[in-house]
Amino acid sequence: MKLSRLGEFGLIENIRCRTPAGRDVRIGIGDDAASVKNRGDSSLITADLLIEGSHFDLRWTSLRDLGHKALAVNLSDIAAMGGIPDYVILSLGIPAHFDSEDIDAFYRGFEELAAEYSVALVGGDTNAAEKLIISVCVIGHSSAKPVERRGAKAGDDIYVTGTLGDAALGLKLLRRVRRNSTRKGQPAVTLLARHHRPTPRLAAGAQLAKKKLATAMIDVSDGLLQDLGHICRASAIGAIIEAARLPLSPAYRALAGKEGCDALSGGEDYELLFCARRQNRTQIEKLSIRAQVAITRIGACVPADRGIVVLDPSGKAVPMRIQGHDHFKKARSSV
Amino acid sequence: MKLSRLGEFGLIENIRCRTPAGRDVRIGIGDDAASVKNRGDSSLITADLLIEGSHFDLRWTSLRDLGHKALAVNLSDIAAMGGIPDYVILSLGIPAHFDSEDIDAFYRGFEELAAEYSVALVGGDTNAAEKLIISVCVIGHSSAKPVERRGAKAGDDIYVTGTLGDAALGLKLLRRVRRNSTRKGQPAVTLLARHHRPTPRLAAGAQLAKKKLATAMIDVSDGLLQDLGHICRASAIGAIIEAARLPLSPAYRALAGKEGCDALSGGEDYELLFCARRQNRTQIEKLSIRAQVAITRIGACVPADRGIVVLDPSGKAVPMRIQGHDHFKKARSSV
Repeated sequence: MKLSRLGEFGLIENIRCRTPAGRDVRIGIGDDAASVKNRGDSSLITADLLIEGSHFDLRWTSLRDLGHKALAVNLSDIAAMGGIPDYVILSLGIPAHFDSEDIDAFYRGFEELAAEYSVALVGGDTNAAEKLIISVCVIGHSSAKPVERRGAKAGDDIYVTGTLGDAALGLKLLRRVRRNSTRKGQPAVTLLARHHRPTPRLAAGAQLAKKKLATAMIDVSDGLLQDLGHICRASAIGAIIEAARLPLSPAYRALAGKEGCDALSGGEDYELLFCARRQNRTQIEKLSIRAQVAITRIGACVPADRGIVVLDPSGKAVPMRIQGHDHFKKARSSV
Repeated sequence: MKLSRLGEFGLIENIRCRTPAGRDVRIGIGDDAASVKNRGDSSLITADLLIEGSHFDLRWTSLRDLGHKALAVNLSDIAAMGGIPDYVILSLGIPAHFDSEDIDAFYRGFEELAAEYSVALVGGDTNAAEKLIISVCVIGHSSAKPVERRGAKAGDDIYVTGTLGDAALGLKLLRRVRRNSTRKGQPAVTLLARHHRPTPRLAAGAQLAKKKLATAMIDVSDGLLQDLGHICRASAIGAIIEAARLPLSPAYRALAGKEGCDALSGGEDYELLFCARRQNRTQIEKLSIRAQVAITRIGACVPADRGIVVLDPSGKAVPMRIQGHDHFKKARSSV
């Protein structure tokens, strides 16, 4: 159905009807504000604004995947604080050519992920727009002290969850496949899935916070080196990264040769990058098993004056300019 | 300075530096998520997405006024629940032609209002965009049970704070003044201010909730009749509005003759529309004095089957189609 026929209030009613009432949602969608039960003495709040043409391209991104990703990137921020997500607010600017089936597909992807982590959609705003605009705000809590970007000390180990570079390589493939219309093999399918449907590392993040194992943490959204730079600045440290230790997926290894290496600077990994004391290595290994995600030690924190150094496999320091994404310095079209 | 030179992280740092650390803000701007102290056992959450060309027109809206208004419309939603605003998240999509002075002006208007109501800016997101996009999420609390749209009963009185129609008439004048470049008299200045810098009725809202005087409440954003319609649907009631009782400002009375009447359907009043038991009339009068805002009784709730009826000054029922704003049914350019 055309949205112009359904109308704004019809759309809101549709969304309201398909949103399960959360146990702790006292007033949900449809009033001036939502009222929700607080689950601790403090709240974690994060927000992301995704804009068509800048953050995603609907030529190669399905609306269902986009719904998943719009929520996932926010959940990843909560994970990076060691938090647990509770509530989400979703505001949409919707182009005139969208129909209610398009919106349904988006909400399906969004809600599937929300249900997986018991996050309740409690409100938002819907508007007409020239291009699709997605604004998400997630509210959560932490059962322990949230893990900040500051707090790492020289001598700490540096770890990352999962594998790096898959999403960035997936995006390159998407652009190439679109041009050449070649058939995709399994490695490509894997990388594309990593690009379209990132997994927020909520279990690992929450356990790292609860056990006070992470001294500083961030999620890798703008590229490993850039996000490591944020930890270094906030913690007033430098870092040495051993390139040979970077966790790379089989799919990435199979296809990265032709495409160049994105594991250091490719964005949208949504893995957790964190620092931890050397004496906690065994505990980190145990946590990796419990949280069911690979956790790889990739380097160490050093005094700030040494900056960020990447060692190549032979142990030689490779001159490395920090690369990554700055929204005002270059254009990107990614999802 | 050009934003392309300042960069995304320079901009975030600028915003962080000028944002005073709130007492209850444990982790503010600059980490993956903010961490804030909860001020009650539940939170109120509301969000608005404002898009250039659809919600505002920079040809006649200053960025400073826009900063004020973007926050005010969200605070008005908190007021309509009887709540107290605590924290705000602000995400911006910024056009390439903006420079850092433009952003400063926007933040100045935003922060002036935030300071007035002790609302702390704790986070958000900044991105490049073709047109200005403003996404605001406000989190607050209520010292009493929040006032919903449902809860009014037949026999209740209907009240509205302040005056109606000023903002809609102001918008008409803006469009006309722009065309004719005529000089503006005082009444026009007043109406324009009502359009550009709405006042969220937080004191009145919070006191109505605290004293349990409002049986249902909403803020008038889409036009009196449309927002009354929301209360009627949610409360399963009808309503009779006496046109002669509608509170009109001197400025409105001076200029509305030529411009047509907007008090019933003109949007963006951001006044509170609420229902209350007949026996509480004296208490409402006292509250009006304490909250320092006019509160006018404009009608009464009736059984649902009577619908919404407007009585003209002679007491005759005027056939009245509900008008107001639906974002998908027509275009609007307003702020």
